Parts: sequence; structure tokens; C-alpha cells
Amino acid sequence: MEPYILYYWPTIQGRGEFVRLALEEAAVPYQDVGRGRKGMPQIDAVLDAAIEAMPAFAPPVLRAGAQLIGQTTNILQFLGAKHALAPRTQEGRLWCNQLQLTIADVVAEAHDSHHPISMNLYYDDQKKEAKARAKDFRTERIPKFLGYFERVLENNPRRGGFAVGARLTYVDLSLFQLIAGLRYAFPQTMARLEPQWPRLIALHDMVAARPNIEAYLKSKRRIPFNEDGIFRRYPELDGQAPASLSARR
Amino acid sequence: MEPYILYYWPTIQGRGEFVRLALEEAAVPYQDVGRGRKGMPQIDAVLDAAIEAMPAFAPPVLRAGAQLIGQTTNILQFLGAKHALAPRTQEGRLWCNQLQLTIADVVAEAHDSHHPISMNLYYDDQKKEAKARAKDFRTERIPKFLGYFERVLENNPRRGGFAVGARLTYVDLSLFQLIAGLRYAFPQTMARLEPQWPRLIALHDMVAARPNIEAYLKSKRRIPFNEDGIFRRYPELDGQAPASLSARR
Repeated sequence: MEPYILYYWPTIQGRGEFVRLALEEAAVPYQDVGRGRKGMPQIDAVLDAAIEAMPAFAPPVLRAGAQLIGQTTNILQFLGAKHALAPRTQEGRLWCNQLQLTIADVVAEAHDSHHPISMNLYYDDQKKEAKARAKDFRTERIPKFLGYFERVLENNPRRGGFAVGARLTYVDLSLFQLIAGLRYAFPQTMARLEPQWPRLIALHDMVAARPNIEAYLKSKRRIPFNEDGIFRRYPELDGQAPASLSARR
Repeated sequence: MEPYILYYWPTIQGRGEFVRLALEEAAVPYQDVGRGRKGMPQIDAVLDAAIEAMPAFAPPVLRAGAQLIGQTTNILQFLGAKHALAPRTQEGRLWCNQLQLTIADVVAEAHDSHHPISMNLYYDDQKKEAKARAKDFRTERIPKFLGYFERVLENNPRRGGFAVGARLTYVDLSLFQLIAGLRYAFPQTMARLEPQWPRLIALHDMVAARPNIEAYLKSKRRIPFNEDGIFRRYPELDGQAPASLSARR
């Protein structure tokens, strides 16, 4: 099999990281072209309808032989089925995809916590609005989403602490990344809230300790979190609780 | 087969509408429980981890026999495969799902154009921010997304004017709904921009004229667009009038 080719921005984890974690856990060879020389023109090309019959709207994009696959959850569905990172049954696969889509929703909201007005403006140009949105994200959305995932773990009748069934799936890898990202961006908030989600934190630790993931996280292939990515550490967005907005409700 | 049960809010089209259109086109029986008596407790129940083994995070949710399926794109993937609203090949199905996920992205942005700060606050409490976000949505995001879908239609080598292959898929139904929703919410913007997307508009018209869809749109089952849904008509978010009309202001 030809190695997969991953097309993603070279300087951030971003949504590409969910794909990288699946590829690393499965130990399948892949070329992370964005990080190589001439990476950017290659990314531009997979988005170009004049070049590709089925262009993607945005990275990440995965080339698998003749197939070009866009959208993070779609790529993970493909990789999960191919590399035993998803259940075999249709019901199990739909459930994995449903959970991954819900992870994608909270990831999009994490992004919008620092860019609530426009992704075409700098953070500093929407900082005031970001403070208001981040407050809602910290106080309403993080607890709602992570509380949901904690209950999903609790409801899984199989042993092992995984999200779905008795084996690791790509959903577990993505939940690890979600926790890691939220901890990076909202350290105070997460320190305060985490005790509510013991199963999620245990899953995070279990994924981090898997040999392939542990090796990856220590490697240069893991780009550090930074303030160009989805999860950004702006202390003013991690602020102390209540006051202005909640008084208006 | 037992009829499907759809769980969705009773007073809006929202994300449930993408599912309804697929069910209506396929002419499969379904119960829209949210609109019936005791609908709300039934919706609450499918989100409750104490009741359902695999609870959904949010509606829409579809019950198909023993399966409970959440997340719009996931439901459509299921229905598409089951009711000939998706291609038979894995490649074709991935491409449909990829396009549907991109539609979901623009739909989420349409929602955030009137709720950029918090879905827990009223529109009037975030109107100023909504004006800024809606401007970005009108001038940057609508052209980028719809330009992308126009090129997808152009790139499809098969005849018929569909998004994928030579037959109708759930993606076509969703593109119809996207155009209809954007026209409702941003009538001036769309009137100005639509000539750029002749294939998308032709697809919209073709879907609207399909017998099952035409009958549905005329029925009481089609909830009218309104200002509680995703696509809301707030004139201040639709910006300036076209040059020819601005003299009237």
C-alpha cells in the first residue's frame, strides 16, 4: 500500500491532530506534507477544483491511494474501519461517528471562543467579544459537553474504560486530544472542573500511556500547542467565574 | 418495518429539516414526535443517559428499530444507504458525507451569525456582535461556501445536475435547504450573489419540483421559516441594499 498523505497546516495541531493520532496509534506510514518543503502549494492543490475532481473545502485532507478524503470525522471514519480503530458492526460505527461529530462540535466552539466574530480578523480585533463568548464556553458549554462524554463512558457496559465497546477506537484518541487541548487553553477552568469527570480523565491518561501515542507525544512530530491553533492559552479567556453576563440572565 | 421516529423541536425547521427532507423524498413513514402531544418529554428522554444506553447530545435524533441515531450528518448517512439516497460505492458515500459535513459547517455559521456570543442569551443581547459576525458571514463565508458547492456541481462529470453522480442524493436535498434558508435569512445578499451560482440555483429548483418534495413543501408538515430557527430574517443582519435599491434609503 502506498503511504497515506496528510495535508494539513504545518505549524499547528488543529483538526489535523485528530487524524495524526489515529495514524500514529495504528502505526501506519504517512507523509505529513504540510510540514515538508513545498507543503503549502500541495495543500492549495487539494483544495483546487481545477486540479482535483473532488476538492476539499478545507484541510485536513487525506490521500489514500486514488481517494482524496476531506473533513476530519469523515477521515476518521475511513481510518477507523480500515485500521481496527472502530467497531465492526454498523451500529457501533454509527455510534462512534455520532460521538466524533459531537467532539467536532465542541472543538468548533473552542475555536470560536477566541474568534467569535470572524476567522479573518485577528484575536486582538475581537478580544472583547471573545471574553464574552469564552465565559459562556467555560461556564455552560464545557460542562455540558464533558458531562455528556463522562456519562457516555459511564454507560458503556463493557470493561476497559473506552468510549465504545471493549477496545480502543478513534473516539478515545479524540477525547484524549480534547482534554489535552482544553487543559492547555483553559488551565484554571479545567483544574476546577476536572474532578467531575473521573472517567474522562482516566481515559485521557490511558491513551497518553499507550506505547505508540506516548512515543508520538515525545517526538518532534507532535507540534506543541500554540496561539495559532484551535486551543489557545489566553489567560483573559480562562478568567475567574461570574459577574457581568450571568447577571443579565 | 416499524416507522422511524424523529425527535426534533416542534416549532422550527432547524437541523431536523435536513432529516425530514430525506424521509419525505424517500416516502418512508415516520413519526415526528416533537410535534405531537407529549413530544417534549420524549425528546428529553432520548437525551437522558439514565434512560438511553446511547443518549444523544442534542436533537435531531432518529429511532430506527432498536437503533437510536444522533447527529444530522450521521442520520443522513444511515438513511442515504438504506433508502437509495446515497451512492453504492464506499468512495461515493465518503464524498457524500464530506459534502454534507461541509453543509453542516455553513449551517452552524448561519446560526452563529445571529448568536455569536452565546446560545443561552437572546438575540437582542448580542445584536451588536451579531451585526459584525453577520457582515463577515455575508461577505466572506457565504461566497466561499457557495462558491465551493458551485464548483462541486461543475466538477461532477455525470449529467443531471446533481452534486454526486447521476442520481439524487441526500446532499442535493440539503443543498436545496441551504439555499432556501439563506434566501430567507439574507434576501438582499442572496439576490445580489445568486447569479454567481447558476448550478446551485438550478439544483434548488429541481429539488423543489420533485413530486414528494413539492407535496411536502405545500403541506402542514413543512414548518415555515421563523425567527426561532437557524435561518432568521433580521434585516439588520442582511446589510446594505444593492446599489440599485439604496437610493430608497
